[in-house]
Amino acid sequence: MCKSDATAQQTEVISDIVMKTEVPGPESKRLHQELEEIGGNGGAVTFFVDYAASDGCYLVDADGNRILDLFQQVASLPLGYNHASLVKAHADPRMVAYSISRPALGLMPPKEWAQMLQESFLKVAPKGLTRVQMMLCGSSANENAYKAAFFRFRANQRVQLGLGPMDFTDEENSSCMVNQEPGCPNNLSIMSFMGGFHGRTFAALATTHSKAVHKLDCPSFDWPVAPFPQLKYPLDANVEANTLEEERCLKEVRRIFQERQDAKRHVAGLIVEPVLSEGGDFHASGDFFKGLQKACAEFGAAFIVDEVQTGVGATGLMWAHESWGLEESPDIVSFSKKALIGGYYYKDEFQPPGGYRVFNTWMGDPAKVFLFKAVVDTILNDDLLAKVRDMSEPLLQILHRGAEKAPQFVTNVRGAGTLCAFDSESPALRDRLMVHLRNHGVLVGVNGVKSIRTRPPLIFGKAELDQFERVFMSALDTLSATS
Amino acid sequence: MCKSDATAQQTEVISDIVMKTEVPGPESKRLHQELEEIGGNGGAVTFFVDYAASDGCYLVDADGNRILDLFQQVASLPLGYNHASLVKAHADPRMVAYSISRPALGLMPPKEWAQMLQESFLKVAPKGLTRVQMMLCGSSANENAYKAAFFRFRANQRVQLGLGPMDFTDEENSSCMVNQEPGCPNNLSIMSFMGGFHGRTFAALATTHSKAVHKLDCPSFDWPVAPFPQLKYPLDANVEANTLEEERCLKEVRRIFQERQDAKRHVAGLIVEPVLSEGGDFHASGDFFKGLQKACAEFGAAFIVDEVQTGVGATGLMWAHESWGLEESPDIVSFSKKALIGGYYYKDEFQPPGGYRVFNTWMGDPAKVFLFKAVVDTILNDDLLAKVRDMSEPLLQILHRGAEKAPQFVTNVRGAGTLCAFDSESPALRDRLMVHLRNHGVLVGVNGVKSIRTRPPLIFGKAELDQFERVFMSALDTLSATS
Repeated sequence: MCKSDATAQQTEVISDIVMKTEVPGPESKRLHQELEEIGGNGGAVTFFVDYAASDGCYLVDADGNRILDLFQQVASLPLGYNHASLVKAHADPRMVAYSISRPALGLMPPKEWAQMLQESFLKVAPKGLTRVQMMLCGSSANENAYKAAFFRFRANQRVQLGLGPMDFTDEENSSCMVNQEPGCPNNLSIMSFMGGFHGRTFAALATTHSKAVHKLDCPSFDWPVAPFPQLKYPLDANVEANTLEEERCLKEVRRIFQERQDAKRHVAGLIVEPVLSEGGDFHASGDFFKGLQKACAEFGAAFIVDEVQTGVGATGLMWAHESWGLEESPDIVSFSKKALIGGYYYKDEFQPPGGYRVFNTWMGDPAKVFLFKAVVDTILNDDLLAKVRDMSEPLLQILHRGAEKAPQFVTNVRGAGTLCAFDSESPALRDRLMVHLRNHGVLVGVNGVKSIRTRPPLIFGKAELDQFERVFMSALDTLSATS
Repeated sequence: MCKSDATAQQTEVISDIVMKTEVPGPESKRLHQELEEIGGNGGAVTFFVDYAASDGCYLVDADGNRILDLFQQVASLPLGYNHASLVKAHADPRMVAYSISRPALGLMPPKEWAQMLQESFLKVAPKGLTRVQMMLCGSSANENAYKAAFFRFRANQRVQLGLGPMDFTDEENSSCMVNQEPGCPNNLSIMSFMGGFHGRTFAALATTHSKAVHKLDCPSFDWPVAPFPQLKYPLDANVEANTLEEERCLKEVRRIFQERQDAKRHVAGLIVEPVLSEGGDFHASGDFFKGLQKACAEFGAAFIVDEVQTGVGATGLMWAHESWGLEESPDIVSFSKKALIGGYYYKDEFQPPGGYRVFNTWMGDPAKVFLFKAVVDTILNDDLLAKVRDMSEPLLQILHRGAEKAPQFVTNVRGAGTLCAFDSESPALRDRLMVHLRNHGVLVGVNGVKSIRTRPPLIFGKAELDQFERVFMSALDTLSATS
């Protein structure tokens, strides 16, 4: 941290932002030591929060700092902190039993279960998808989506041989018990993209390629990785180069499909984020994603869209992939974060043949689904998708003005809805800006090598935007003067 | 289902059990059709439950049947349905923010977080384990325990070479990004047991060997599987044979360790359940588990005990492995189910070197941890472990009397605490008994090929035991007469 950040020690009086200490302050540091003694919970805790005192777009930390939060718990709060509609849902008498008498949803769900899903996840299902499978987090959503892809691929193979989709041979039944072929089709794979992130359990991790620290020392599957387009900004000045770049990547995707097919090591599915978020907010055109869908269809692979970070309104559409203009929905769309719980929508043909194949004890959590119904109602009643679309251009304009003022800190401005990002010239400059903003009452996310991302909740409005602008521009003035 | 079961259509008047229909009844069947249209949630739903109307050891289904539940949502309810202490915890004002403003616990946990863990999971930590890592379910707990095992194994390898635990080479940093060695040590493995169950995400599934349907069509890792002792009952009449059987399995475990070590394909960890539950309730002696721990220590592998189904009091001890008389705790103990949320305890040496290595967005859920504190307080205040121990012998005696009455339905009676099981002569007889019991108001679990298991909550008492005995003995009378 640079010296100038120490000025944050005095209370600032910028409207709703209230800064009493640096972040982390002394109380957070004390709590940090306590937590380290019992494991530290992942070794990346930065500060502690008073969740009961937080509200709307503002979190209050353990030192009493009131911070404008444009990161929102890694993009996972749809309505900010302690939204009235969720307070009400939590207090609903129906919530009690869901919270304290947790069902094994795959065996004996609540009598209200189908209705709850209809009024929550299916009410906002991507067009063309009428089935949903709940899980608990994004990783388990994707791992089970991969299973659905493998089941369907193997079922198709059997049907092509004139067999039924579950006509397992004795050899399959016995070999799978010791992890071997043919019961475990270890030649099959899921293709993913360099820079993509799909979770950290082992199969999800085999499709994650955002940072080495996620993957080092973990055994993995020999699953293929394709390049994702690295677009040049501004887009309108780089049309030809970007088109060529997308064509290059699509060609490579098709080459991998073909190569593995020729080697009888088929790719059973391809997973991609609409915006490669953890990797550094890489965007691509609708045409690129249409090309992916087409390639998947040709090679018989599932087209899986991971909307864990982009879904539930962040781009101003309920699902980011709606902007691509696909003629047909993706095969599978996974979600988590702002959905409060993980899961995936899927096409009928990805219904697993037979029961107990996508299965576990809990198969979701009715308490979270009940709360998500309140989220859906609020999004629709308060027209929050329109609000996100309204805030998009003003937010991008602020970032562009920042780029003019301090290009070493802000360049390659990009975004969809309020899911925006920019790069700094170096990781060090990026980190310096992030820490300065935090100490002055604005929390943003970092991603990729040298990117900063904004992930405000859907209730983010003009008042919060103005506060962000003031702190952001002031930060760039200060940092430019001292760098 | 056999004809005689249809007699359950009339209301029975056996104390607290109230049967109005067969199970599933007409309302459950109607709801089932609704759910099938949106995916069916795993294809194994049997009936629907009115969770608000359920209480204690009794669930009320969608048709108004009040059923004595000895299965408890796959052994996942510690205090039965809607226990007063959990109703109170849910209504606590502190619960609101945890429930609706869900933190990214690995980045900015609640200021109360360390204290919450101390008052819940660490208050009942296995002796010698002072660190805990929260996850969300048993699968993610085990997957991350495997990571901790791999991290520690690779760190030890580096230290032996005179390097630091995180001195990653450039080649490791780049190769891991495309899933290849040396960054991804694809030669390392986790050993597990035939009949074991450790979850269904892909790495957890590679260590699961209970049923083919769990594993078919899913690619897997080439990780080794050892035989688990198949003990003969009654134990006291088969001492020598069982000792030999355990020695045979231990020898095979050591052979696998040695073989892989010789091939420089080391086993980095071994995972085992105290009772192999999904596989069919296979027990082994304390000496067997001591032998496993010793082998792990010799070969530098993590000794991971999966207490997802056995933990939190089911055996009359907080953790089932406490009965083994280990001189030193296991390296890692995973939990979920009755713990309300997944996670694992671990020894200091399994603290991942560096941050962000065991990590994800949520890293647990404070709402569940807050509720689990109430579970722990209730277990301690109401001396529920003693209650489980008191109920153990009477429950086993009923099963033994059943075995005398109808050995084709009940044999190989075994148990620890109220975690009891028996086999039938065939899967068909087992299923017939299970369905008959269900239609007459007692829900038990099935596992393995032809086993029935009891998994009552810790509050299970004399009144419920008497009801179970009456229905169980009557079922055996009826079924014996008609079979």
